[in-house]
Amino acid sequence: MAAAPAFSFGLEARAGAARAGVFETPHGRVHTPAFMPVGTHGAVKAMTPEQVAATGAEMVLANTYHLALRPGEGLVQKLGGLHGFMRWPGPILTDSGGFQVFSIPKKEISDRGVRFSNELTGDAMELTPERSIEIQNALGADVIMAFDECTPYPADEKLAATGVRRTLAWMERCLAAHQRPNDQALFGIVQGSVYEKLRERCAEALVALDLVGYAIGGVSVGEGHELLCRITSFCAPLLPEHKPRYLMGVGLPEDLVAAIGYGMDLFDCVIPTRYARSGVAFTARGRIRLTNRRYRRDGYPIDTSCDCTACAGGFARAYLHHLFAANEILSAILVSTHNVRFYERLVQNARAAILAGAYDDWRQAFLAQYRAGD
Amino acid sequence: MAAAPAFSFGLEARAGAARAGVFETPHGRVHTPAFMPVGTHGAVKAMTPEQVAATGAEMVLANTYHLALRPGEGLVQKLGGLHGFMRWPGPILTDSGGFQVFSIPKKEISDRGVRFSNELTGDAMELTPERSIEIQNALGADVIMAFDECTPYPADEKLAATGVRRTLAWMERCLAAHQRPNDQALFGIVQGSVYEKLRERCAEALVALDLVGYAIGGVSVGEGHELLCRITSFCAPLLPEHKPRYLMGVGLPEDLVAAIGYGMDLFDCVIPTRYARSGVAFTARGRIRLTNRRYRRDGYPIDTSCDCTACAGGFARAYLHHLFAANEILSAILVSTHNVRFYERLVQNARAAILAGAYDDWRQAFLAQYRAGD
Repeated sequence: MAAAPAFSFGLEARAGAARAGVFETPHGRVHTPAFMPVGTHGAVKAMTPEQVAATGAEMVLANTYHLALRPGEGLVQKLGGLHGFMRWPGPILTDSGGFQVFSIPKKEISDRGVRFSNELTGDAMELTPERSIEIQNALGADVIMAFDECTPYPADEKLAATGVRRTLAWMERCLAAHQRPNDQALFGIVQGSVYEKLRERCAEALVALDLVGYAIGGVSVGEGHELLCRITSFCAPLLPEHKPRYLMGVGLPEDLVAAIGYGMDLFDCVIPTRYARSGVAFTARGRIRLTNRRYRRDGYPIDTSCDCTACAGGFARAYLHHLFAANEILSAILVSTHNVRFYERLVQNARAAILAGAYDDWRQAFLAQYRAGD
Repeated sequence: MAAAPAFSFGLEARAGAARAGVFETPHGRVHTPAFMPVGTHGAVKAMTPEQVAATGAEMVLANTYHLALRPGEGLVQKLGGLHGFMRWPGPILTDSGGFQVFSIPKKEISDRGVRFSNELTGDAMELTPERSIEIQNALGADVIMAFDECTPYPADEKLAATGVRRTLAWMERCLAAHQRPNDQALFGIVQGSVYEKLRERCAEALVALDLVGYAIGGVSVGEGHELLCRITSFCAPLLPEHKPRYLMGVGLPEDLVAAIGYGMDLFDCVIPTRYARSGVAFTARGRIRLTNRRYRRDGYPIDTSCDCTACAGGFARAYLHHLFAANEILSAILVSTHNVRFYERLVQNARAAILAGAYDDWRQAFLAQYRAGD
């Protein structure tokens, strides 16, 4: 299957395995490496689309599983698809729902798909490759994801092999079901847990399908930084050079800079917004917990080197500490905006370093400062 | 006491008793009639200062009682006063804390002041005229309010008379305690419950003090629209023509347009932001409850005649309904922004009507449409 003409991916520069590219989609351009803020229910938590765009984010992610349950993909489609519904005019990616249904404790997995109970109504539901693509076609994101079997961690080799077999069989069914190949790019997902032979087999079979893009899945499931690095560094070179590569659900800043070094292009994670709501902010010198008493009288902004609305706007750590103590929504707004901006600056700076041919130096300098602490 | 030179109030036009004026403060100009969004803890709920300013609000209110309890006025002062702390560069008004301490069920009121328990620590606390002004001097708002006895409703005439006696005695003590008369205007408050003689006596005594501005207090305490109108229409003419007149804690749109008609200039109320968080939005055709199932598939914005970020941004009622169902913070952000903009447009339109000499026509047209329903 050839790439749809509305999509293209061009590499501007390489520095070691790291890449700086441009991914063209029907709703605009994404400069890679890129970080996608997560809008689970069709809204990046505690931020307006305008505030998300102001962080430099070019593409956002939304969740097929959650949106199918509520408000239902038919309603989203009626209201202009996800772009119209959530008022995000730029590129959007939807996951397949696989990660969510595999996280449900009580479920029945078969070659057909996954049966589970609707968490809102209790009704019996089923997600299959066909149904996932049907939902994603209705939601209308620029990039849609294959319905895969996300192998838990840890998993023995037999379970992981079943996951790869199903993932590949379901990939074919996803491709057959896909009704909008011209304006929605269907990415395949490499599974195989920690087993290199399985990862290799999965990647080879997917690459043979000549998809628009590829993802590494089955990571960020509790395997830790070391294993994440091992899996990513092994899998990235198995993927086509001239296609975008997406590392799903990753992660912490240290994970991102490692994975960019292995040649990954796209990332998403709930961490910047989730941590923000619990009072944790990212700075060039590591994370700080604004709810800690040490910030009660601190007149400095979160990060003096940051240009986000909260930092450039002069909101003091002491003010944010107060907002968290008073349970004010503005705490989540300001710190989410800061954290997402931190992630966007991270990938922007990584990109600049790749273009300058000095990614590894930049990465080491970033990590040295980031680990030095506040 | 003469008006501090940093303050002035000029009338641009009158239409009946309604007035259009300009109130100059050390932090900028307020065009009246004006509505002040409420930032109880030093933050207008679910809105950034930038979003508040974008609604057209020129002045905001913050609460002395809440800020004294947490984070403490000393810390606010250290961090640049309220303007620096909450990053609101424009005019700010603080209440005296009187309304809050009189709402505490267990309290001891004497001629000295009010004793109560700190709701956060359980410690015994006291608020007196001197202490209220000390806190407000530290917070540094442009307008500060006298510590008054806010008579509950209903109250017999004896209780109301005691309230007026204390309010007047405390006014003198507030004036004596006030350390920053040059850059903070101290407003007096007319009490007296529903008793015209008491209101008249209170107003006359306060007017004799030649204060920078005057408020009508002891309203919005459960007396209802009719009594509010009766008290306001009686009191407003007792106040000096060339001083700003502030109706405290009011109110619903119908209350505002009535009170503007009686010659009141300044208003504050938690209603637009509080209602927003529970899913209630104001429109030209009345209030709508976005959480109602009837809006589940409604593709229209909250109010097609509104220019706020939410309406002009094209966010559908169905999307907002979904955000409330999914408990997304963005629901509060968008609807608060809309509701505050609704209130600011209301006073802007009222002002334009006064300038055009047609306030009463405008008010009747507004109410006819507002009461017609959606």
